[in-house]
Amino acid sequence: MNVAEVGESGLISRIAEIVNRNPDSASRKDVIFGIGDDAAAWYGDNSIQLATVDALRQGVHFELETTTWADLGWKSLAVNLSDIAAMGGIPRFALISLALPESTDIEDVVAFYEGMTELARKFDVTVIGGDTDRSPLIDACVTVLGRTKTREQPLLVRSSARVGDLIAVTGSLGAAAAGYKILTERLTFENNTAAALLSAFQRPFPRIIEGSILIENGVRTAIDVSDGLIADLERICRASRVGARIETSKIPISPEVRAGFNSSSLELALSGGEDYELLFTAGGSVIERVKNAISCPVTVIGEIITDANYNVAVIGQDGKPETNHRKGWEHFKSN
Amino acid sequence: MNVAEVGESGLISRIAEIVNRNPDSASRKDVIFGIGDDAAAWYGDNSIQLATVDALRQGVHFELETTTWADLGWKSLAVNLSDIAAMGGIPRFALISLALPESTDIEDVVAFYEGMTELARKFDVTVIGGDTDRSPLIDACVTVLGRTKTREQPLLVRSSARVGDLIAVTGSLGAAAAGYKILTERLTFENNTAAALLSAFQRPFPRIIEGSILIENGVRTAIDVSDGLIADLERICRASRVGARIETSKIPISPEVRAGFNSSSLELALSGGEDYELLFTAGGSVIERVKNAISCPVTVIGEIITDANYNVAVIGQDGKPETNHRKGWEHFKSN
Repeated sequence: MNVAEVGESGLISRIAEIVNRNPDSASRKDVIFGIGDDAAAWYGDNSIQLATVDALRQGVHFELETTTWADLGWKSLAVNLSDIAAMGGIPRFALISLALPESTDIEDVVAFYEGMTELARKFDVTVIGGDTDRSPLIDACVTVLGRTKTREQPLLVRSSARVGDLIAVTGSLGAAAAGYKILTERLTFENNTAAALLSAFQRPFPRIIEGSILIENGVRTAIDVSDGLIADLERICRASRVGARIETSKIPISPEVRAGFNSSSLELALSGGEDYELLFTAGGSVIERVKNAISCPVTVIGEIITDANYNVAVIGQDGKPETNHRKGWEHFKSN
Repeated sequence: MNVAEVGESGLISRIAEIVNRNPDSASRKDVIFGIGDDAAAWYGDNSIQLATVDALRQGVHFELETTTWADLGWKSLAVNLSDIAAMGGIPRFALISLALPESTDIEDVVAFYEGMTELARKFDVTVIGGDTDRSPLIDACVTVLGRTKTREQPLLVRSSARVGDLIAVTGSLGAAAAGYKILTERLTFENNTAAALLSAFQRPFPRIIEGSILIENGVRTAIDVSDGLIADLERICRASRVGARIETSKIPISPEVRAGFNSSSLELALSGGEDYELLFTAGGSVIERVKNAISCPVTVIGEIITDANYNVAVIGQDGKPETNHRKGWEHFKSN
């Protein structure tokens, strides 16, 4: 059986089974979360330590026709910072393994690192190491290390959603996927709209500060929206062994997407992915506290329900479940 | 100018210049070594923390015709453990970003992780995270996190060689490069010889324990031999602003290489690379202490001298400098 047939989640389960066969090792005893959440977590001396790795690969995650080197540097760090945000952590250090064709202009590499450090500085992240290789295709593999404020601080995890929790999301959805459509389908839009959508796709802004606010106000369950709202909510459902019910009328579709994409705007928001917003669940009073404490919009889009199949039910305007939505992006599987 | 013209070391200098532009950040103040040594190092609460990243890329570092998936898993971890060894640290955690063609058999992925965890268990390293992607070519990007025993412990660095230091190396050299030659040139050897050379290439054994012994006995300068003895010694020279003089008659050429490769055995030992032995410098009395404390061979091959050009002089049997040796492997530059 090949990896396309098994799919990304099947592959990850199999990998986790192999690497977790040695539960008695001394280093393992410090581990809080290994494979399976947004980032790995383990006990440091005075704080919980976090680490995550994610690669942007030419031909898979990006093409040079639709990205600049500076944006690539920014985004390859941003997607990892977002994983630290989704744990409620503070990012500190980044390491980059960058593979480049031999013909790559040195100024392009400079632009890559300048884009990356522009974002790094916003969150006081230091690039401390890396590795460069030649390769026929560009490959930016970034590791980010982070930590919590204290050793006792809870984390935002995928597995703690409870039946009755409300489901909420920061910011708005669909803009990054719309930006991608503009680039790949060469759509024309009014300047400000195009700029906002392109920026959402090219320079996503990780919700680091918001992740900390969620933790401080009692939220314990979160994931970042990278592969699509439905796909990522399903991950919370599977990890927490619950179901979810969301209403299409409540989805905070980005205003530019709603204006520019009309009939497909809901689909972009539900399944487009790459929004890097935080999707979280908590009781109603916790969500109210978060709304008061946070500077970005927070929208309740549904609730956690009992479901032995851990499904996400999407309820349409007519109150009936819609089953025609793509879930989002999963590597190795056609969607 | 493209990266092939600048070369790997030129590229790394340029990258270091960009990422170090922000020396006042809070996270940076904890950094002991960023880009430029075998691993990054920073102050944790009770120990020094270490991190390193290195990728094995299909078509650049390996071909499926000459490696098994299990060996690839082992080696992609081993090269990173070796970087932690070369700092005198203890490895703890690994994260893997693995890119795979969609047609990859799931059992091959299982073999990869089994090879990796086989080595991980030997050093009590836990695989805590990762990421899988599809990609036309296999790419295993591994990050290893480690630490020192105490916060006060010195590190093995490249920049502390002093004129008058002896230059020494653990184990023997050339076997990995000879193993690679056997595979790529389909050479035939007596079984035991072939097995030893292939194993050196396919399953290098990182000198973690030896790195700790070096530190405990007063060594402060080391690098692991990954790109070739001359190339890696030059890195110590550049970082320490000294020169080196080594004698070909003293090089500990692997006995199997000496027996099987005769005229090219010295070249394999000097420039072949991938030995993952520790190359270090220290005063004579420190080296004597190391020899008594360590279970592997330690051979003095030369000494650190004054040289404004930071060159490595290779002295032949006749006492004269030889200038015909390849230096070793540098990405982006033809050697």
